[in-house]
Amino acid sequence: MRWARFDDGGTARYAIVEGDNLSPVHGSPFGEWERAGAARRLAETKLLIPVVPPTFYACGLNYAEHIRAVAARVGQPANLPDKPDVGYRANNSLIAHGETIVIPADATDAVQYEAELVVVIGRQAKHLTRETALDCVLGYTIGNDVSERTWQKSDRTLWRAKNTDTFAPMGPWIETDVHLDSLVTRVRLNGREVISFATNHMLFGVVDFLVAMSRYCTLYPGDVLWMGTEGAAENMRHGDVCEIEIAGIGTLFNPVVREGMNR
Amino acid sequence: MRWARFDDGGTARYAIVEGDNLSPVHGSPFGEWERAGAARRLAETKLLIPVVPPTFYACGLNYAEHIRAVAARVGQPANLPDKPDVGYRANNSLIAHGETIVIPADATDAVQYEAELVVVIGRQAKHLTRETALDCVLGYTIGNDVSERTWQKSDRTLWRAKNTDTFAPMGPWIETDVHLDSLVTRVRLNGREVISFATNHMLFGVVDFLVAMSRYCTLYPGDVLWMGTEGAAENMRHGDVCEIEIAGIGTLFNPVVREGMNR
Repeated sequence: MRWARFDDGGTARYAIVEGDNLSPVHGSPFGEWERAGAARRLAETKLLIPVVPPTFYACGLNYAEHIRAVAARVGQPANLPDKPDVGYRANNSLIAHGETIVIPADATDAVQYEAELVVVIGRQAKHLTRETALDCVLGYTIGNDVSERTWQKSDRTLWRAKNTDTFAPMGPWIETDVHLDSLVTRVRLNGREVISFATNHMLFGVVDFLVAMSRYCTLYPGDVLWMGTEGAAENMRHGDVCEIEIAGIGTLFNPVVREGMNR
Repeated sequence: MRWARFDDGGTARYAIVEGDNLSPVHGSPFGEWERAGAARRLAETKLLIPVVPPTFYACGLNYAEHIRAVAARVGQPANLPDKPDVGYRANNSLIAHGETIVIPADATDAVQYEAELVVVIGRQAKHLTRETALDCVLGYTIGNDVSERTWQKSDRTLWRAKNTDTFAPMGPWIETDVHLDSLVTRVRLNGREVISFATNHMLFGVVDFLVAMSRYCTLYPGDVLWMGTEGAAENMRHGDVCEIEIAGIGTLFNPVVREGMNR
C-alpha cells in the first residue's frame, strides 16, 4: 500500500495511492483511518512531505564506497564505523517531492545529492529485538540528503552543510510493501544516470539500527530514519533536476536553483 | 509573563503562572489565546514540557571552563569554537519538571547534569539581524542536558550519550520577561550547591546564534535552542535529586533513578 500526504485546500490529509489516483482518508496510517471523499488525480495534486517527523534520525556513514570517497576528498583515512551510532537532521530542511532545492547564494559549487532509503516508524517501540524490529515500521520512502561539502568540512557540526532550508527533500510517498534486499537506488541528474547501487548493501541494516537505537531511545509514530548513501556524488547546479528512484517505492523529483539567480 | 503547559485530564493545555496558581487559556502563547476556565493550584497540577519542539537545537561547547574540563577529561587540547555552529538533540529524551531521570542499567557511573538556558522561539523567522534577533523569542526556560560521559567519548555521535530517554529535562515553564545579563545559574544536587555561574557568560550569545542559524535555517514557533553549560559536573546517582535554578526564570527539579534498582 502507498500512503501519500497532500494539500487539500490548505489542510494536510493522507490518501492511498492507487495507480494515477489518490483515495483520500480521514485519519492517518499512524492510527485509525477510513476512506473519505472522492478520488483525485495524482498528477493534479500537490504532495506534501509524507510525514512531519517527531525525531529525524540519519545514519550518516553507512556504505563502504561512500566512506572511502568522503575520506579521499578530505584527505583522511577511511574508517568504517564499527557500530550503528545514529545522528540527527532537522525538520526545517524538509521539502516535498516536486519542490525546489535552493542553494544559498554564498554556498560553493560543491552542493551534492545523497540518495537515501528512509524508514518510517509506524508505532511506538522500545527494546526491539532482531525478530520484532521490523514490526514497528510502517513503510519506506526516499530522501535526498543534500550536502554542501565545504561547510561539511569546515563547521564543527553538520548544521548548515546538511540542514539548510530545502536540503532534505523527502517523498514522494510511503510504500508499505517493500523487500529490502531487492531494492536498487538510481540517481539521475537532468535525466542522466549518475549512480546506481543495491539499496540494502549497508554496513548496518535497518534491523541493526532499530535494535541499537531502541535500546535507549523510544521510537515514535512518524519518526524517520535516513539510512545513508553509497558512492561519490556530483555537484548539482542552478537549473538542474535531481531524481532519485528506488524501484518498488517510487521516484523523488526536485529541481535545483541557486538563490539570487533568475529561475 | 510565565507560560506553563499542563495535563488537563489527558489533554495538554497552556496556562499563565500567577503566584501559586495557574490561569488556563484556550490557544497558546505561539498564537491567539484567551483565558478560559477556573484557576488551578500550581502545586496540585502535573506540568508537562513547556513545548514540543519542531526542531531541538543545542549549542554544545559554549562556555570556556566547560570546554577546558571536557578536554582535560578526554586528554585532548581545549579548542574554543571560533563560530556558532549549532547542533541537535532529540525529542524522545525530553521530560518535564518533576519527572524522573532514568539511568540505563548498562550506563557507567559517569552520568552528569549540564545546566542550560533554553531559548524558546515564538514566531517564524529567517535572516535575522543583531537588531531584530530577539524579536522572534517568546521567552526562556531551563534544560538539563544529562550526559553519559563514556558514551560521549566512545560513540561516533552523541545519540545515546545525550539523547537516551529522560536525558533532557526541560521546564518548569517559559518566562517571557528576562534580562539575560542578570541571570545566574545554580545547580543543587540533593540540596547542596555544586556550581553557580553567570548564565550569559557564553562564548556566543543568544543573538549570535539566532543570527547565524537563521541565515540558512528558518526558525519556527516552538523551536528550542539550548545554550550550553559551564564548568565541570559531578555524577548523579540513584536516589539523587537534581535542581537547576536560574533566578528570574524558575527551578527545574528532577529525581534520578538507575534502571533495575528499587525506587
